[in-house]
Amino acid sequence: MKQLKDKLIEARTLLDASFDKKMTLPEGKEKRLVEAMRYSAIGGGKAFRAFLVLTVGEMLGLKKESALQIATALEMVHTFSLIHDDLPAMDNDTMRRGKPTNHIQFDEATAILAGDSLVINAFEVLSEENNLAPEIRCQLIHFLAQMAGKEGMCGGQMLDLIGEKETLNLEEITRLQTKKTGALLRFAVLAPAIASHADESTKEALEKYADCIGLMFQITDDILDIEGDEKLMGKTLGKDKLETKSTFVSLMGLEEARQKAHQLGKEAKEALSFFGEKADLLLEASDFILERKN
Amino acid sequence: MKQLKDKLIEARTLLDASFDKKMTLPEGKEKRLVEAMRYSAIGGGKAFRAFLVLTVGEMLGLKKESALQIATALEMVHTFSLIHDDLPAMDNDTMRRGKPTNHIQFDEATAILAGDSLVINAFEVLSEENNLAPEIRCQLIHFLAQMAGKEGMCGGQMLDLIGEKETLNLEEITRLQTKKTGALLRFAVLAPAIASHADESTKEALEKYADCIGLMFQITDDILDIEGDEKLMGKTLGKDKLETKSTFVSLMGLEEARQKAHQLGKEAKEALSFFGEKADLLLEASDFILERKN
Repeated sequence: MKQLKDKLIEARTLLDASFDKKMTLPEGKEKRLVEAMRYSAIGGGKAFRAFLVLTVGEMLGLKKESALQIATALEMVHTFSLIHDDLPAMDNDTMRRGKPTNHIQFDEATAILAGDSLVINAFEVLSEENNLAPEIRCQLIHFLAQMAGKEGMCGGQMLDLIGEKETLNLEEITRLQTKKTGALLRFAVLAPAIASHADESTKEALEKYADCIGLMFQITDDILDIEGDEKLMGKTLGKDKLETKSTFVSLMGLEEARQKAHQLGKEAKEALSFFGEKADLLLEASDFILERKN
Repeated sequence: MKQLKDKLIEARTLLDASFDKKMTLPEGKEKRLVEAMRYSAIGGGKAFRAFLVLTVGEMLGLKKESALQIATALEMVHTFSLIHDDLPAMDNDTMRRGKPTNHIQFDEATAILAGDSLVINAFEVLSEENNLAPEIRCQLIHFLAQMAGKEGMCGGQMLDLIGEKETLNLEEITRLQTKKTGALLRFAVLAPAIASHADESTKEALEKYADCIGLMFQITDDILDIEGDEKLMGKTLGKDKLETKSTFVSLMGLEEARQKAHQLGKEAKEALSFFGEKADLLLEASDFILERKN
């Protein structure tokens, strides 16, 4: 997995440089807002979504500059979702990626605004003039909005909040996760295909791969919430059990959840066979999710 | 002002029909999110921003369908800002437009998510295929993101929050309001000009008009916070004084603030002279802001 690790580090480095450019500190007291945006965006996390965009983009011959623009917008949306999910009214988390969450470091109002500004900034970035035709940029914006909004990530988060009060069945938990985690991963993998005018079979294979790793990501997350190491994860664990929340693990049991994750790994691999050796890195990424410790 | 009143009602009606189409209730428990979005979006307020888009669009010969699309996106952003501004961590308001604020009617987490989903939905709407060329749609998305985000409305709200703890000077208060209220009004007036390929002189005249009514809007808001009728305003008044916040009135005094508002009204009129009689409705709108009771 050395290649994967190097590529993840490269993605993080490229992303941070891009964030730095897109979020320059302004003059005046309102710079506090951009400080809060940068605090959560720069240097945090594995940049896994950016890595996916860059890797699929490279596989399909997309210009690196265009892929990085897509990755920047996507990771802005991802960061926005983490900041808002951590708020006291939501998951009420105080630690994220090994440091205080945004509303602890700044304050609640600033954290809300920083999230708002990040999601808005994502659409600013995607609409900018670049190598991509305006028609393609509009398609990407539309796709990102669908994956992030009421029918995608935000809809999933709503179900997640409802799941804290009501018991959700397996169908609902699957829908929750398909929306909450899966939607942005789907964007990560399919947006470079849209941007490089890929054919339908290419898109279908990538979509299948995205859906498998999305669900796998969440199942392993649920398993890690029980078995993981808080230091490695950089956040508080065991919260699901504490809150008697329905998860894949609580509904399927630990063993069946593990089997399901492995089954999804197999399906992801099958989907990638379409691309042959060119998809080796994506294959490694799938194994990485399956075996991850954080 | 009969014509203006009719036009405001027409804008509200068109906007509500458009909101209804863009925010259909989904199946499943997550429909609560769309219920919350619709609660704050539909039927609330004067739809003044939509009116501006439709009126400028009509003046410049823009197709009504395109103008309505722009108006829908803009009012989604406006509604998002109201929901988040009302949150306990922000202005902590319990009443808005004569009914309980979103987080009172639903809950805080749902209100945060409803705001998030509305701002994302705005970009989905603007990116949709329609009569406008993709290049123009990208320009509109970029413009809306700039006016709404860290350099626009959100930046203004950050300054507003800082102003609750620190004294702001007149320059800062002006910048605050130019961003917080002015930016979206600027979009309302200029977006139809971009969409109809208006020339630079047209854009300049409209920009001048937008900036005058934006500042005027805020000054009259500050005056109404002291002198207004809570029933007519549909929200709690006197909060600025209670919180000893810097406002135009506290910095300039009531009389000078009133004079400044009238001066801005005069300048708005001058800017509109460029369009002759075609701009009569926009002139009425400017008078309406100056004389408004809510």
